[in-house]
Amino acid sequence: MLKLRNVLSMVGMILLFLAIMLFIPFLISLYYGDGDWKALGISILIIVFVGALLTLLHQKNQDLGMKEGFAVVTFGWIAMALAGALPFYLSGSIPSFTDCFFESMSGFTTTGASILGTVITIESLPHGILFWRSLTHWIGGMGIILMSLAILPMLGIGGMQLFKAEVPGPTKDKLTPRIRDTAEILWLVYVGLSMVEIVLLLFGRMSLFDAACHTFGTMATGGFSTRGESIAAYNSSYIEYVIIVFMFIAGTNFALHYRLLSRFEIRKYWESREFRFYLAVIFTVTGLLILNNLTLFPTDSVEKTFRAALFQSVSILTTTGYGSVDWENWGAFAQLILVFAMFVGGMAGSTGGGLKVIRIQILVNQVRIELRRLIHPQAVLPLRIGRQMISDSIVSNVLAFLLAFGMLLLLSTIALAALGLDMVTSFGAAIASLSNIGPGLGDVGPTENYGWMPNTAKWLLSLLMMLGRLEVFTVMVLFSRHFWRK
Amino acid sequence: MLKLRNVLSMVGMILLFLAIMLFIPFLISLYYGDGDWKALGISILIIVFVGALLTLLHQKNQDLGMKEGFAVVTFGWIAMALAGALPFYLSGSIPSFTDCFFESMSGFTTTGASILGTVITIESLPHGILFWRSLTHWIGGMGIILMSLAILPMLGIGGMQLFKAEVPGPTKDKLTPRIRDTAEILWLVYVGLSMVEIVLLLFGRMSLFDAACHTFGTMATGGFSTRGESIAAYNSSYIEYVIIVFMFIAGTNFALHYRLLSRFEIRKYWESREFRFYLAVIFTVTGLLILNNLTLFPTDSVEKTFRAALFQSVSILTTTGYGSVDWENWGAFAQLILVFAMFVGGMAGSTGGGLKVIRIQILVNQVRIELRRLIHPQAVLPLRIGRQMISDSIVSNVLAFLLAFGMLLLLSTIALAALGLDMVTSFGAAIASLSNIGPGLGDVGPTENYGWMPNTAKWLLSLLMMLGRLEVFTVMVLFSRHFWRK
Repeated sequence: MLKLRNVLSMVGMILLFLAIMLFIPFLISLYYGDGDWKALGISILIIVFVGALLTLLHQKNQDLGMKEGFAVVTFGWIAMALAGALPFYLSGSIPSFTDCFFESMSGFTTTGASILGTVITIESLPHGILFWRSLTHWIGGMGIILMSLAILPMLGIGGMQLFKAEVPGPTKDKLTPRIRDTAEILWLVYVGLSMVEIVLLLFGRMSLFDAACHTFGTMATGGFSTRGESIAAYNSSYIEYVIIVFMFIAGTNFALHYRLLSRFEIRKYWESREFRFYLAVIFTVTGLLILNNLTLFPTDSVEKTFRAALFQSVSILTTTGYGSVDWENWGAFAQLILVFAMFVGGMAGSTGGGLKVIRIQILVNQVRIELRRLIHPQAVLPLRIGRQMISDSIVSNVLAFLLAFGMLLLLSTIALAALGLDMVTSFGAAIASLSNIGPGLGDVGPTENYGWMPNTAKWLLSLLMMLGRLEVFTVMVLFSRHFWRK
Repeated sequence: MLKLRNVLSMVGMILLFLAIMLFIPFLISLYYGDGDWKALGISILIIVFVGALLTLLHQKNQDLGMKEGFAVVTFGWIAMALAGALPFYLSGSIPSFTDCFFESMSGFTTTGASILGTVITIESLPHGILFWRSLTHWIGGMGIILMSLAILPMLGIGGMQLFKAEVPGPTKDKLTPRIRDTAEILWLVYVGLSMVEIVLLLFGRMSLFDAACHTFGTMATGGFSTRGESIAAYNSSYIEYVIIVFMFIAGTNFALHYRLLSRFEIRKYWESREFRFYLAVIFTVTGLLILNNLTLFPTDSVEKTFRAALFQSVSILTTTGYGSVDWENWGAFAQLILVFAMFVGGMAGSTGGGLKVIRIQILVNQVRIELRRLIHPQAVLPLRIGRQMISDSIVSNVLAFLLAFGMLLLLSTIALAALGLDMVTSFGAAIASLSNIGPGLGDVGPTENYGWMPNTAKWLLSLLMMLGRLEVFTVMVLFSRHFWRK
């Protein structure tokens, strides 16, 4: 049986943590005096109250197991999204609760899809609320690193077991001690890198407020901006390069950063086959975009062409979704290259979404092995990534993940079309949500937003964001009748 | 080492068989007196000459093994497509050799994508040539049934081993005796069904010529018509229903038909889980299309709505591609439902293309098992379809196939966009070729054709048709360096 009371008490703890984080925008709202302090304050009170109530449900001597792990992660994300929507709703900044929930889920899942931009402009939001919007990214990003390096490997989701050994910490079956140790370590890396980015953005003459918000969006590979035009609004190549570098860092496995910062093991990057493949994909996508744009915009300077291609390539591959130009003008070839990038996503153990680089590597190798098996049917051909042997059960995990992702994408595209969206927009919105990117194609392209969509579509996309962010199976497993059986 | 001489001699035999088949359109051209008898006659002479030369390469006491199997199938299809293009080219009916090859490959792979319709109308072709065009479907369809029930199971391609036991015949490792036995049996079923369809179409007041050509297109799930408007040209609900029934039959595993016709085992259909799933998919797709069209065209009669939905559903699911209406007017939802159908395809062991129903079933079950495995990590959970256990190696075959298909689809869509096609057309042309359907989306939709495309795109699509038709791996394996190693 699922130990529901202890699951809910863990969710309560998450809510209490969220309430603490809400104090930052609360203080900011007091500083700017936009009048949103009331909404933030009331949100804190509600969240503390509900969170405290839930923690009271805790029962002693009831260790959390695998099932509870799935439930805590899924319910935790839903609770965060609901709680995170409160400030938007109570302040009246976003009148529809559906929109508030969409924006909050998009924040915590580090997607960056926004309903703001047309009816309600981003710039119209008070500072405290705007800061909270970006902060949901940062909190979500931290949650994801923790989840993908500490929790999912133990739950055996979609091949994440590969990373069991990568982060130091006890490897007991109980979740709590490991999570605590890992959390401390990664927290430091995440905070440290964020501080460096803020400082570098300040050098680019961004305000502290904007620098912090954009750092949250970058480090979480989220993509919420404080400007309607996104990064293009600053018209600064320096800022663009800083953000490129930090998107790249955020799309890298944080276990590698940890090793660099704690033990100066810089060679670990190069030793990681996933990291090499990640670089190779970025180079390939950037190269193809440069070729495309050299023919399309021959009057642009080489630096400008290079920067625009690199920015979009890294932004989409890491699933951040920041925009420096409108790549819907780049033609069908460039857009399809970026669709390919939308599937790939960042490295596992990063804040990036998508399928993850390692899974693409396993897929390519599996197809290669199948070809060899046809020629030598008796041969035993294990799948390797570099020197690492990948067990059959992990390969089957990964393949099932890829196929579940594909099925989900097809079905949700059809569902969106049934709600009246056109074909390209349906597909674009589905992949952009499932891969946690933000901007998609068609009417949800890089310069558009999701505000115009029917409410049902917004709820569906919110679900897709969560499914994508929690590696699909974590959520799907809760819908299985075996899960609820004694 | 590959026994290349005996592979080529087998290809020579295929060419000689083709030359015999060419006598039928040759006689027809004499009967109609359109003047195309010369081109057909010269083609026969060339093909007999080359075929005979190749058979002379045969070396005794050199049995054909697995490697030779892959090579014979792939080279055989290329040789057929080249030889089949000769009559088009020599008669001057289609001036560009690229177009001739495209049309011929589309015929033998039972795709039905055509370059005819705009610059050169279908109706302008002489009778002999037009008959040959449809006959390539019929020959290809027979080849496919043979291949999928007799050759591929032994080669272990993409889970086709499942059908090893379904057709009676010796199960030695040598290809030749088994092929001969199976060929005889299936030949009878195929010819018998074709004759019934011709007769039924004659009752619908179709000419014998048109009835034969449309039967070839139906039984092979090809889709070439003798009319530019396809089946819509006849404006007869009787003809549409006949063709629906025979497309359905052609999309069913021929081993089931054989059992019915030889031993009256009609219950074998219902015992086949794949057949039930095939029915379920047809019902679902048809139902959704009916719902869509009831709201979109409320003035149409219920029978008309039902017939149009059923026709398109069966035509696309079986990958035939015949058109009774222009479903590009049915909106994004209906088009995406049909895109889903394009992926599914017919049953294994039928003339239908696509992923095949059984593979979708294995995929769905694999995802379901992964979910259970997450809840019970220690449990041993074999994959079953009905009472049949599917071994791990077959599951891994199938998953690798699905992923290779997906990768190929993504890369070829990008490649087509690089050649200047728009996004929807690129995707539509790629899936329509890879799944051997014919009509795609956008500028290659049900009422358009492929004539306008750049030559490079035509060659790429010809390759995709072959890859799709030969279950991807059969062709890909030839590009592996392990294949050519001693």
